[in-house]
Amino acid sequence: MRGLWLEERRLALREDLEPPAPAPGEVLVQVRLAGICNTDLELLRGYMPFAGVPGHEFVGVVAPGHGGLSGRRVVGEINASCRECDACRAGRSTHCPRRTVLGIAGRHGVFAEMTRLPEDCLHLVPDELPDEVAVFTEPLAAALEIQEQVEVRPRTRVLVIGDGKLGQLIARTLALTGCRLHVAGRHAAKLDLLRHAGIATLNGPGAVETGAYDLVVECAGRPEAFALARRAVRPAGTLVLKSTYAGRLEVDASGLVVDEIRLVGSRCGPFAPALALMAAGRVDVTPLIAARYPLARGEEAFRRAATPGTLKVLLEMDASGD
Amino acid sequence: MRGLWLEERRLALREDLEPPAPAPGEVLVQVRLAGICNTDLELLRGYMPFAGVPGHEFVGVVAPGHGGLSGRRVVGEINASCRECDACRAGRSTHCPRRTVLGIAGRHGVFAEMTRLPEDCLHLVPDELPDEVAVFTEPLAAALEIQEQVEVRPRTRVLVIGDGKLGQLIARTLALTGCRLHVAGRHAAKLDLLRHAGIATLNGPGAVETGAYDLVVECAGRPEAFALARRAVRPAGTLVLKSTYAGRLEVDASGLVVDEIRLVGSRCGPFAPALALMAAGRVDVTPLIAARYPLARGEEAFRRAATPGTLKVLLEMDASGD
Repeated sequence: MRGLWLEERRLALREDLEPPAPAPGEVLVQVRLAGICNTDLELLRGYMPFAGVPGHEFVGVVAPGHGGLSGRRVVGEINASCRECDACRAGRSTHCPRRTVLGIAGRHGVFAEMTRLPEDCLHLVPDELPDEVAVFTEPLAAALEIQEQVEVRPRTRVLVIGDGKLGQLIARTLALTGCRLHVAGRHAAKLDLLRHAGIATLNGPGAVETGAYDLVVECAGRPEAFALARRAVRPAGTLVLKSTYAGRLEVDASGLVVDEIRLVGSRCGPFAPALALMAAGRVDVTPLIAARYPLARGEEAFRRAATPGTLKVLLEMDASGD
Repeated sequence: MRGLWLEERRLALREDLEPPAPAPGEVLVQVRLAGICNTDLELLRGYMPFAGVPGHEFVGVVAPGHGGLSGRRVVGEINASCRECDACRAGRSTHCPRRTVLGIAGRHGVFAEMTRLPEDCLHLVPDELPDEVAVFTEPLAAALEIQEQVEVRPRTRVLVIGDGKLGQLIARTLALTGCRLHVAGRHAAKLDLLRHAGIATLNGPGAVETGAYDLVVECAGRPEAFALARRAVRPAGTLVLKSTYAGRLEVDASGLVVDEIRLVGSRCGPFAPALALMAAGRVDVTPLIAARYPLARGEEAFRRAATPGTLKVLLEMDASGD
């Protein structure tokens, strides 16, 4: 099987990978289209130790041999949990301590011709959603996780810090709440995209009013953005952390106490509403597509994705671009 | 007027202080009993710049000249807010950006024979509450703030880290919810006090189970306690920060994101329920009293309060111990 292989901060195309062998309860999926996420780039930079096939955003088709499911188009949740432990039984399976995570921890991912996942991780894709839309299900679900964790009302003053891939999706989902939304970014083209979607933007940290926001979402992927978020949030406000990156953050803990700030770490979210919002045309993700590469040019695709200012880079698994 | 004066990290008894002159809407209060809080000790260590009379925990009697209020026994909320700004009108007057804070910021405190506060900061003390109980209203209210911010249910597994003054009060209020409560501390005598109040204790960080708590309250007043709190809280759990101290905290922000931890800074709380709980005998604060000193021996009282292992030290303003 052909796929990308990540090991010791190096990525390489390999032709000799073992095809995945589904365990009981698992399904073999032929990957059609996959997206490169900042977490993939951070893995390549050594954010976490991982050796294997990376990639976790995908749309594919269930392989033959899975009964009525075979041939169906699917997307997949990335946490393969035990379904038995206390966390799983309490409804927090994305936090199962025994979980593996697609292309991130203990499980090969989707930058390959085939992948495997537990059947209960899969979601059928509505026919009207083309592959290049369905491939955004995972990051759009991650954006929606914010609203699973924090109450956003029409009067809530919200600032999203970061105009990148995730920031674009978060802004588009938050805009649907009717909240008073601003997005602060540093890239003219990305801010243009947001304004085109009817979202108010602020160019650079200097444009951000101090203490003016009830809710601030930090998804810029840089430690400096935390300081801006902290400045922008009002006392007794909420600061959602969405970025994962290597390195530690220095925090004025007493300031958090005095100002009674609530910090909320936020990761994976619900797939069904993400699919429904895209199927209903309420979130248009296609303007985020920066480029499509065949798997054979995967290394080039990663370099492109890592270029500052680049939005979503997609990998086509069945294209013969070599 | 006689009182303690704090300036440039030095505390001194002074006999020549100007008596407070109440502004319109303010009330002059003869202080009877006051408590030394960790924040007072941190102010002396330079946690925040403050020059003046420190102290914010008190019970007193309204001075003559205030109509029906004169002669009544009162305690007082410490944030004197403008009642006009957006924060005040939104019900967050403890976060008013123009506020002064009794004995902490921009307003002389209560370690003196007299103090002044806006009338709407004052609460009448029920007759059945002796002074040495009423003086705990402010810190008990701060303990109750946790339950204003975070849902605590009977099945919630709660860990309080810190067996000091504030930890003792927090544990006593949380115990009333019926939650599954442990307090981790390092002082045998303080842990004994808790067990005497029917609260389960853990001696030292080694006794704390990793990831076993839905809610962890950090009130040990030391940066190291944060690491223990972070280890003890389960993924998707809540970590309440109650300590204020100088210095910054190093946090693994990505870890907060991956584990979807919620950090909640917590400060001042509601006075009325604190008074009601003490009046009903549901929280017994008197075992926390370590010593009483007359104002004239205030410097000695501070030294005693700063001695490791010491619980609440009270200052008697009208005692003639000199």
